[in-house]
Amino acid sequence: MSEGLLHPLAVAEAWKKVGRDVAIATVIETWGSAPRPVGSHLVIDGEGNFEGSVSGGCVEGAVIAEALDVIADRAAKTLEFGVADETAWRVGLSCGGRIRVYLESLSFDIERLNDCRDRREAVALITSLDDGKAFIAAEGQEIAPALRATLDGAFRSGKSALVEVEGKSFFLNVYLPPPEIVVIGAVHISQVLAPMAKLAGFDIRIIDPRTAFATPDRFPDVELVADWPIDVLKERPLDRYTALVAVTHDPKIDDFAIAEALRAGCLYVGALGSRKTHASRLERLRAEGFDDAVLAGIHAPIGLNIGASNPAEIAVAILADVIQSLRTREIVARDSVQQ
Amino acid sequence: MSEGLLHPLAVAEAWKKVGRDVAIATVIETWGSAPRPVGSHLVIDGEGNFEGSVSGGCVEGAVIAEALDVIADRAAKTLEFGVADETAWRVGLSCGGRIRVYLESLSFDIERLNDCRDRREAVALITSLDDGKAFIAAEGQEIAPALRATLDGAFRSGKSALVEVEGKSFFLNVYLPPPEIVVIGAVHISQVLAPMAKLAGFDIRIIDPRTAFATPDRFPDVELVADWPIDVLKERPLDRYTALVAVTHDPKIDDFAIAEALRAGCLYVGALGSRKTHASRLERLRAEGFDDAVLAGIHAPIGLNIGASNPAEIAVAILADVIQSLRTREIVARDSVQQ
Repeated sequence: MSEGLLHPLAVAEAWKKVGRDVAIATVIETWGSAPRPVGSHLVIDGEGNFEGSVSGGCVEGAVIAEALDVIADRAAKTLEFGVADETAWRVGLSCGGRIRVYLESLSFDIERLNDCRDRREAVALITSLDDGKAFIAAEGQEIAPALRATLDGAFRSGKSALVEVEGKSFFLNVYLPPPEIVVIGAVHISQVLAPMAKLAGFDIRIIDPRTAFATPDRFPDVELVADWPIDVLKERPLDRYTALVAVTHDPKIDDFAIAEALRAGCLYVGALGSRKTHASRLERLRAEGFDDAVLAGIHAPIGLNIGASNPAEIAVAILADVIQSLRTREIVARDSVQQ
Repeated sequence: MSEGLLHPLAVAEAWKKVGRDVAIATVIETWGSAPRPVGSHLVIDGEGNFEGSVSGGCVEGAVIAEALDVIADRAAKTLEFGVADETAWRVGLSCGGRIRVYLESLSFDIERLNDCRDRREAVALITSLDDGKAFIAAEGQEIAPALRATLDGAFRSGKSALVEVEGKSFFLNVYLPPPEIVVIGAVHISQVLAPMAKLAGFDIRIIDPRTAFATPDRFPDVELVADWPIDVLKERPLDRYTALVAVTHDPKIDDFAIAEALRAGCLYVGALGSRKTHASRLERLRAEGFDDAVLAGIHAPIGLNIGASNPAEIAVAILADVIQSLRTREIVARDSVQQ
């Protein structure tokens, strides 16, 4: 789920910075087969340069032409395209579709939006389709009570959507940091979890200081670091959109990472080990000052209880558990959020 | 989990048939890193020909030498090997290990064991290590009450194991048919489910008569049949070790397969669709004569309830649900089992 280097919103900010006019087109609704999901952006400058995509090439030309008008008028409009040209759609999805695109002259605080995205903070751009006003809300930030539940739901699902609230239409464009799974332990479970997590849309990296385990042969196409968690996590820290999966059951390797994950408020902290192993682990963590309420958040035994019978099935149980934690998490009100 | 063409037990049966003496070596316990799991076989004939493996090459020579004695004496013995030669172990698992191997002159009804395996029936070979007597029990077959719970557990987990029952040692070698997931619908969910299911150890095939969906481009390295379930399932029927996943939500395509799965006693029957879609589906199936108790076994909504937010996450939810059904299933006593 990592964004490319040239995210359209980063390009738009750069254009704005050097004084160019900018229009932003956003897919706000799709029917049938649509090549680009709701929330996708195409950004256009006053000279017709563009970055991004709303349809993979089918209707970009028309949107760019309209964008120049929108820039001239400092206005906003909604465009709708039926897509008849079946060959333009993805192989196997050529049954046609329609998309609705919201096109506006850039008027919102794009610097703050990009800043949140860069800091891996979940953020939403909320646009009233009635008056074109747009505002930005970070996850947990105070917001109009009528929008609260809907926005929390969008933050949980990561899905941008057109919603009706008290008779008004809003488009909620949510930008979730790409969720990452950090696995401590280059073991059998991790060998299966890594490709599965990628298939499910997660970034993943494996950390294990034991060079006999952490070999590229055993982990092809996976980010693998053969070093101690205390060193690795200093350079690239855990955060609230990271799931920490500790599976070495060696306290020397697991413990620091688990403690760090609890401090960082990771979306998931899971640790492999027998009841006895976990009891000793809890004692060590209590001695480090963690209280029982925090420790109760550790998923141990790790993974959903599906009767997994081998390392590959344990990997499925863990991945399902991580998804459940991500998609059903409580959206905590945060005073500290930059307003 | 498909067996190779030359399963050691098939080779042993063929040797027996032509009058050769046969010894069977079986891994009954492992400590540390062992290259072959508990239950693995090496079969040896009276001239030292062999098939299969108990250690991936480390100790086969010694086992074969012992086998010739065992054949001569019509006896059985237990061998133990510590593996010091680290290079013999798999890359990354070179921390040494020990294995215990049970070696016997073939004395059990290997024809019946292979017949069960060929018919995709779960079966166990139960060997008393005290007196060397071995007997065969199919899943659900009546058996000594003291062994019942332990054997049921082994059938659920698919794990062969050394057990103590009433002071006696038994080795339970369970042979589970390779579980298969049959997916009706070559859709987005299936594109992710297919590689994931393989990683988790399942065979998988995708059936969809819509040739625009069922294209090899969209499903590389997966068994894909662009035909109607009614035709495909006639040729290769569903059985109790098949999970049926119906995700087209088109009754013309899904319904027959779902009904067939209920008739076959599939380990899992799941169907995608809204509450309303499922209600109409149940009505149609009731009209076909299925009673409510049977229909209640359909997993709908399909997959564990983990808040899955996109097709890839739904695939994880389905796979976890299938594993749970496989590993926690009730072992039903079956009168019809061949004794």
